[in-house]
Amino acid sequence: MIFEGSEKKVELVVDPKVGSLRKLGRPFWEKVVERAEAQVLSMISSEGCDAYLLSESSLFVWDEYFTMITCGQTTLVNAISQFLETISKDDVLSLIFERKNEYFPRHQHTDFYEDCRRLNNMFSGTAMRFGHADDHHLYLYHMNKAYLPSADDCTVEILMYDLQGQGKEIFSCFNQSSETIREKTKVDQIFPGFHVDDHAFRPCGYSLNAVRGKEYYTIHVTPEENGSYVSFESNINLEHGVQPTLMRVLEVFQPNAFDVIVFRPSGQKEKDYDFEVNGFQKKTTVIQKLSCGYDVSFTYHFRKPKEIQAATLLEDF
Amino acid sequence: MIFEGSEKKVELVVDPKVGSLRKLGRPFWEKVVERAEAQVLSMISSEGCDAYLLSESSLFVWDEYFTMITCGQTTLVNAISQFLETISKDDVLSLIFERKNEYFPRHQHTDFYEDCRRLNNMFSGTAMRFGHADDHHLYLYHMNKAYLPSADDCTVEILMYDLQGQGKEIFSCFNQSSETIREKTKVDQIFPGFHVDDHAFRPCGYSLNAVRGKEYYTIHVTPEENGSYVSFESNINLEHGVQPTLMRVLEVFQPNAFDVIVFRPSGQKEKDYDFEVNGFQKKTTVIQKLSCGYDVSFTYHFRKPKEIQAATLLEDF
Repeated sequence: MIFEGSEKKVELVVDPKVGSLRKLGRPFWEKVVERAEAQVLSMISSEGCDAYLLSESSLFVWDEYFTMITCGQTTLVNAISQFLETISKDDVLSLIFERKNEYFPRHQHTDFYEDCRRLNNMFSGTAMRFGHADDHHLYLYHMNKAYLPSADDCTVEILMYDLQGQGKEIFSCFNQSSETIREKTKVDQIFPGFHVDDHAFRPCGYSLNAVRGKEYYTIHVTPEENGSYVSFESNINLEHGVQPTLMRVLEVFQPNAFDVIVFRPSGQKEKDYDFEVNGFQKKTTVIQKLSCGYDVSFTYHFRKPKEIQAATLLEDF
Repeated sequence: MIFEGSEKKVELVVDPKVGSLRKLGRPFWEKVVERAEAQVLSMISSEGCDAYLLSESSLFVWDEYFTMITCGQTTLVNAISQFLETISKDDVLSLIFERKNEYFPRHQHTDFYEDCRRLNNMFSGTAMRFGHADDHHLYLYHMNKAYLPSADDCTVEILMYDLQGQGKEIFSCFNQSSETIREKTKVDQIFPGFHVDDHAFRPCGYSLNAVRGKEYYTIHVTPEENGSYVSFESNINLEHGVQPTLMRVLEVFQPNAFDVIVFRPSGQKEKDYDFEVNGFQKKTTVIQKLSCGYDVSFTYHFRKPKEIQAATLLEDF
């Protein structure tokens, strides 16, 4: 069974003069989501944000920006086109598009280069890769426009590979209810006071959206044995660095490898890459200042190998 | 510019009663190669082996077996089908099919799982993966038939990623002649006394076939910056282990990472994985006994990171 858990992501900020994006309403966002070949499963709201749980990941909408994360074989660039049928591209203040390290790129409708060519028909942008092409890496495209993010506009993305222990056990078990998953893992309590929406997929797979004011966190679990994967993402306050959040998340999922990506407004000088996790070795550290106003760090960590492995039998081809 | 250097490979042994595979003649093998969507560029022979240099890699034909290695977007399983239009599958004593760690799997016509399903329409086989799916890995499929390889039936494959120094400089330079490449790198003299055939592609890329009696070595260089890659493969005598050959090859290409794959007849107890290379860290060691008569080892080594990197700008999307 093959399912691509690894995501595409877009964050798009509009000029406040176009009015609240939330007020565009659920039918508008459902159409945007459909163009990515996904569906809205449910929606919750906080005072600052609407959080849509999708058949393939999540969409968060604030008054002036939205973040859409889609996995599987979704076509996120099409969703951006759909959005621009209503909102003029001249009113887009910032656009950042990402594609993460994929397990099964062959099954994607486009690759990152094709996505960039299509985005460059709408915008003028810059493309880059964090990490070597033969190794864990992140592709990023951003619009070439100066943008000044607010001081608290930070995002942390934690991508986890090859779950072990409890993480593997609980999430790879077929047909669990979301109640059981929450009870066993406390994923709904990673931070206090969040309003949570979640969905357990059949036979397996789990998604969670959580909002509190303008803050969100979201978790997507693809436990399939051929490439188990979890993504965690949040705009939670990072004044104590990424490590407290990271440790909490690693404890739940117990991966064999993980990537940490941190976006901060340029010039904050926080060393988000400067940490070690017990039992893991840091293999890659990439830091890059984007001309659109953010500093981005990417680190890749792997569990130190203990022994000689055997090959993995593939029984379900 | 995107070109997939990483290869698919098949090694197929036939019952001697079908007669010499070499005697099937060049037109026969050209047809086999064409079905993989490649062309024969040239051919040399030693007393034991015919070596075809292909538009995408190489084909070596001995009396009782052949090895075909194809890169790019070739369809190697189709070539196996074509071969079986003349030689009955009942006369196939051993078949091993590999797919190596790919840079651009999205551009392949099939993935490994699809290839296995097609191979299983012709044979009954076992599929496995060496290494984690999110990391350097090798896919291998073999026919389920007991086979007893001769004691000297060893193969070493060295896959090199992200060339540096001289390796990068010489091979990424556009429109070089094969004479210049040979002169600067001595790739034609890695072992003495071999008959060599090579081809420098335009604007870049280089292939070499070398034969001596029943021995061969072959090199394929894809120097494109988005994913530079070199493969070296040989059935040279490994009585002194893989390290002398490995060191000679690494010196020429100076990669940032490499994989070493060694096939030996089962039970030789050589520890082909038990070595370290100065400046490199070994990340993965997989050893596996195949029920078709070989022991296989896979190791992945990377150059220890020196510093923080910047992101790689992608200018040619």
